[in-house]
Amino acid sequence: MTQTRKRGPRGPYHSGREAQRAILDAARAVFAEHGFRGGVLRDVAVRAGVSAANIIHHFGSKEALLTALLAERDMGGSLMLRTSPAGFIAELRDLVRRNAADPDMIRLFSTLAAEATAPDHPAHEFFRERYATVTQETTTAVETAREEGVLPSGPPADQIAAGLIAVMDGLQTQWLLDPGFDMVAAFDAHLTAIGAD
Amino acid sequence: MTQTRKRGPRGPYHSGREAQRAILDAARAVFAEHGFRGGVLRDVAVRAGVSAANIIHHFGSKEALLTALLAERDMGGSLMLRTSPAGFIAELRDLVRRNAADPDMIRLFSTLAAEATAPDHPAHEFFRERYATVTQETTTAVETAREEGVLPSGPPADQIAAGLIAVMDGLQTQWLLDPGFDMVAAFDAHLTAIGAD
Repeated sequence: MTQTRKRGPRGPYHSGREAQRAILDAARAVFAEHGFRGGVLRDVAVRAGVSAANIIHHFGSKEALLTALLAERDMGGSLMLRTSPAGFIAELRDLVRRNAADPDMIRLFSTLAAEATAPDHPAHEFFRERYATVTQETTTAVETAREEGVLPSGPPADQIAAGLIAVMDGLQTQWLLDPGFDMVAAFDAHLTAIGAD
Repeated sequence: MTQTRKRGPRGPYHSGREAQRAILDAARAVFAEHGFRGGVLRDVAVRAGVSAANIIHHFGSKEALLTALLAERDMGGSLMLRTSPAGFIAELRDLVRRNAADPDMIRLFSTLAAEATAPDHPAHEFFRERYATVTQETTTAVETAREEGVLPSGPPADQIAAGLIAVMDGLQTQWLLDPGFDMVAAFDAHLTAIGAD
């Protein structure tokens, strides 16, 4: 396993798992800054302290590296609404607060989601399914919240759910462009405006 | 002016203006699909039917080509809220309808805005200023709409403005990922939810 002992900024790695961890961390940083299509595998390699061939050895391809990154716990945890019927609005607020503590992850997600709107992007299906799932879950949560009187009745629940997801995504762009922008306060204001209790 | 007569898919061009138009159209398509950083000047050249050197001749650099593209009328028109105190809500609805008719422009804007959140991106300042201006204008429009009773009072106007801009941006991502998603209906539902009259 010569390649896992290759020296670099973070090397040497004593196990394949260590090397993979370093490659994933490097890929996250490079893709967050340049996007997947703009991100160069060589830059990932340099940052991780391995060779490009070593990355292919561990992950198979640049696309497979992206898939591994997207499947990671952090990414999923931050994207997914942890909806609980008892505290939907509280969960939403908590999600935005967690996101506000993790600008690098949000930058990665925003950039990838935008470029993955292209049908031929390797993460296109991932994001389509992710949004479909999150929208479905949020719609159910809106319906429950209405039954409990936590959200007022009004337009169809799926449209309200789409709007909630949209405002979270859109506020992230404004916050990434201007770190002084208080997206937590703006999201709370939005909840007040739609009559959340 | 040999270069403006160079033959290609769209050539020959009989004037520098024709060639510039073809290059801008090609750049819009390539950057919309791959982002600015992922977009390759050579692909712009092939699509426009000119040489990469010809693009440099006309625009100076890849960054300057992006700047020229962003400064274009269509781009500005679609980004900017054409606020008029008399019909703010109508203007918002109209803006979303216009955007829904122009997926390519919206894809370009979404992708560039996301990657331009990186401080070293050549369009970073452009988007920072754009959002600052649009937020300022929308805040004023929200204040006027409240005075006229078209929007209810509530949280600070600048936060409501940020939410309106965010929901428009976020719905675009959902619509680009799933062309069957009705972002016009979702936006109308959002306006109803915040009590717009």
